[in-house]
Amino acid sequence: MSDFVFDRATAITDGAGDIHDGWDIGGNANGGYLMALAARGLRDLAGRPDPISLTAHYLSPGRPGPVQVEANVVKEGRRFTTVAGRLGRDATTILQLVGTFGDLSQPLGSYEHLESGPPELPPFEQCVLRDRHQGQVAVPLMDQLDVRIHPDHTGWMEGRRRGVAEIAGWFGFADGRPVDTLALLMVCDAFPPAVFHLDMPPGWVPTLELTVHVRAVPAPGPVKCVFRSHFVQGGFFNEDGEVWDSVGTLVAQSRQLGLTPLA
Amino acid sequence: MSDFVFDRATAITDGAGDIHDGWDIGGNANGGYLMALAARGLRDLAGRPDPISLTAHYLSPGRPGPVQVEANVVKEGRRFTTVAGRLGRDATTILQLVGTFGDLSQPLGSYEHLESGPPELPPFEQCVLRDRHQGQVAVPLMDQLDVRIHPDHTGWMEGRRRGVAEIAGWFGFADGRPVDTLALLMVCDAFPPAVFHLDMPPGWVPTLELTVHVRAVPAPGPVKCVFRSHFVQGGFFNEDGEVWDSVGTLVAQSRQLGLTPLA
Repeated sequence: MSDFVFDRATAITDGAGDIHDGWDIGGNANGGYLMALAARGLRDLAGRPDPISLTAHYLSPGRPGPVQVEANVVKEGRRFTTVAGRLGRDATTILQLVGTFGDLSQPLGSYEHLESGPPELPPFEQCVLRDRHQGQVAVPLMDQLDVRIHPDHTGWMEGRRRGVAEIAGWFGFADGRPVDTLALLMVCDAFPPAVFHLDMPPGWVPTLELTVHVRAVPAPGPVKCVFRSHFVQGGFFNEDGEVWDSVGTLVAQSRQLGLTPLA
Repeated sequence: MSDFVFDRATAITDGAGDIHDGWDIGGNANGGYLMALAARGLRDLAGRPDPISLTAHYLSPGRPGPVQVEANVVKEGRRFTTVAGRLGRDATTILQLVGTFGDLSQPLGSYEHLESGPPELPPFEQCVLRDRHQGQVAVPLMDQLDVRIHPDHTGWMEGRRRGVAEIAGWFGFADGRPVDTLALLMVCDAFPPAVFHLDMPPGWVPTLELTVHVRAVPAPGPVKCVFRSHFVQGGFFNEDGEVWDSVGTLVAQSRQLGLTPLA
């Protein structure tokens, strides 16, 4: 058993595990943590090391306590294995998921075309440590992480809105656990919502659905992240994420569909 | 029974339907058509009119002939119903899906923030009709559609590459069928891949996964579309789509994870 907290908190044995205390925002487990927990079970089933594309629909809040990952292999191909199933507590489905796993240790192709690069960030130490007491609700999750926000992107903490829904910063674990392809699932939901920079009515912005594409195995060190919401309309918003490793490789892309606070 | 071809070609009765001939690219049914076909079955089950977020993993090619939609309701909530299942032919899974359906006839929120608008396009008539004979492979699908490509985005047809993976244009049905929220699923995969504008080695670019967020019910008329691939790397690429209706409302966003041609 690993000594790292994230590994203990995402342990799944024969489809059974626990939502651990301390990975929550105001009592509800973080969506990225829940996705990683479910993915541990799906990955065991798939028998391939890396989540390539994983989608979760968020159906019930995750409170601490026992959970089950119930899933099945839909197709085992030459390069990929697709699984589908759920993270639940008895009859209650918390997450419904479909995902394809593979092996990213070797690139599957050599052609490269990147229209942009990693976000411009001050060095890790010059960014602002996100702690559990910023914002309106306590975020115990932040005790587990070492998330550093771009100093220009912290105005929402004091109610100053930039008017542009973008938040960038660094992600690492507080106990130094390496960021691997499983952890990238958590990274993609570990930042304050980019819409906090808007003059939207305040409130809880639940995730309806999150899809993460893991694009490469990260090199050692904290990762650079940027999240942007381009379109808030009709009660919904997108939040698109990019995660880049210490050598400038794109390691994950994410998109979630969120709900604006109910009027 | 509707007189429109798309409605006949996506008919599902008690979970049974057919992949119709004529919706293919070189013999394989278009991915957006397959998603719409599956969604007809899922929508019946959900009992709500609009796909809000739908994800499909593409596991086997779709050849003409009988198929089954096998799915179940995961959660029926106050505003949304989530379903999960597959489009298959006997033991072969063609698409594995998870989706949430709802009712977009009334907006769920009034706050709006759009960081950009619809793509700049010449009028419908001044764009280039996509027909089945452009490109390297016959595309019978195009007989069903009235897809008009931005005149600056057609160079790939003659092997002239722009070097920017972006393609924009108009979408309508050849027989004038209105573009509703079901059809938007098809719209999001109806354009030539944006990566055709790159100097990538030519070949089939299979879709591993496609997620569509339907954001609003389209106003009457053809819709404006733009698809962009920002990151081609390690054998994978993203293709992000936006679909806007005739009154300038964002009606869908999509992202797919594609595979570059095998070397």
